[in-house]
Amino acid sequence: MTPPRRKLSDLELKQARPSLDEVRNTPRLPIYAILENVRSLYNVGSMFRTADALHMAGLYLCGYTGFPPRREITKTALGAEHTIPWEKHTDALELARDLQAKGMQIVVLEQTTDAVDFWEAPIRFPACFVVGNEVIGVSDELVALADLILELPMAGFKQSLNVATAFGVVGYELARRYRYSREPSKTD
Amino acid sequence: MTPPRRKLSDLELKQARPSLDEVRNTPRLPIYAILENVRSLYNVGSMFRTADALHMAGLYLCGYTGFPPRREITKTALGAEHTIPWEKHTDALELARDLQAKGMQIVVLEQTTDAVDFWEAPIRFPACFVVGNEVIGVSDELVALADLILELPMAGFKQSLNVATAFGVVGYELARRYRYSREPSKTD
Repeated sequence: MTPPRRKLSDLELKQARPSLDEVRNTPRLPIYAILENVRSLYNVGSMFRTADALHMAGLYLCGYTGFPPRREITKTALGAEHTIPWEKHTDALELARDLQAKGMQIVVLEQTTDAVDFWEAPIRFPACFVVGNEVIGVSDELVALADLILELPMAGFKQSLNVATAFGVVGYELARRYRYSREPSKTD
Repeated sequence: MTPPRRKLSDLELKQARPSLDEVRNTPRLPIYAILENVRSLYNVGSMFRTADALHMAGLYLCGYTGFPPRREITKTALGAEHTIPWEKHTDALELARDLQAKGMQIVVLEQTTDAVDFWEAPIRFPACFVVGNEVIGVSDELVALADLILELPMAGFKQSLNVATAFGVVGYELARRYRYSREPSKTD
């Protein structure tokens, strides 16, 4: 007989979780992200938290995107600013060019003349996805450089998402692609 | 020859977007969500914005979850609180029982003894997914009632996501499932 379902206790959660050493020794996903001119430090912190949950390879904080240590980042990162490798770069375009030259796929989230539905987009790894400013989005130069432009299906009246939410949606979709490129799906 | 890629102008975006009447006449996704005791009004607003982007069927704001009109909700919802049908319910459990009796699948995001990886979970529609309080999660009673418990893969040191980010990740995954349950995938 199956015992009734219940939430895991704090102790069980602690025991079920990998130890810090186990996480440290688990390879990170070959997924990076460039944050270009993100205005809100709360959004930056939230993206750190998501990047940690996915065990992403690293974050590049570019242009005037804020960087740790900042109280507002810690408030939403909840410590993930200490667990995710990050670098500060003034020039996002130069960085993206270098990463691309090293074989990384540069994937920009934007609305362009050739944007591809993100569920259908041909992702390859290592990948670096780029999110931009809350109001004006990703710069024209980075859009021009990108290997691939993704757009999220937008079916409502407002046609946009919060940048930290979009980061989570794209991050988890890339992680799904990476998983099923290595291990065939049981259900798809 | 393909013209060079560029971002869509504000005018092009406006023209590419469906008109308000077209959105109004497009069937909503058969996906609802219960927000149970969500503390932050900014999170509530952000979930309104995501629900609008997905053209979800509706939001149920339960327990002490705040509801419009509130300045903090508008700040992150950016008007989506006027486009998504919503209802206020004191008792989330009673509501979930009613929705379940009407044939809706109640899907809770939690860490339990029988939680299923969300990429593998057997979703059926109409579905109502439940997110809970930022600290204590979904109530034991709603967890017991649920048809299905989902968990997101967590590979990092922190093992949790912001609730509004998780809402986006789950919402878009349910939308993906709904799309490909109707239209076979080109790439999977």
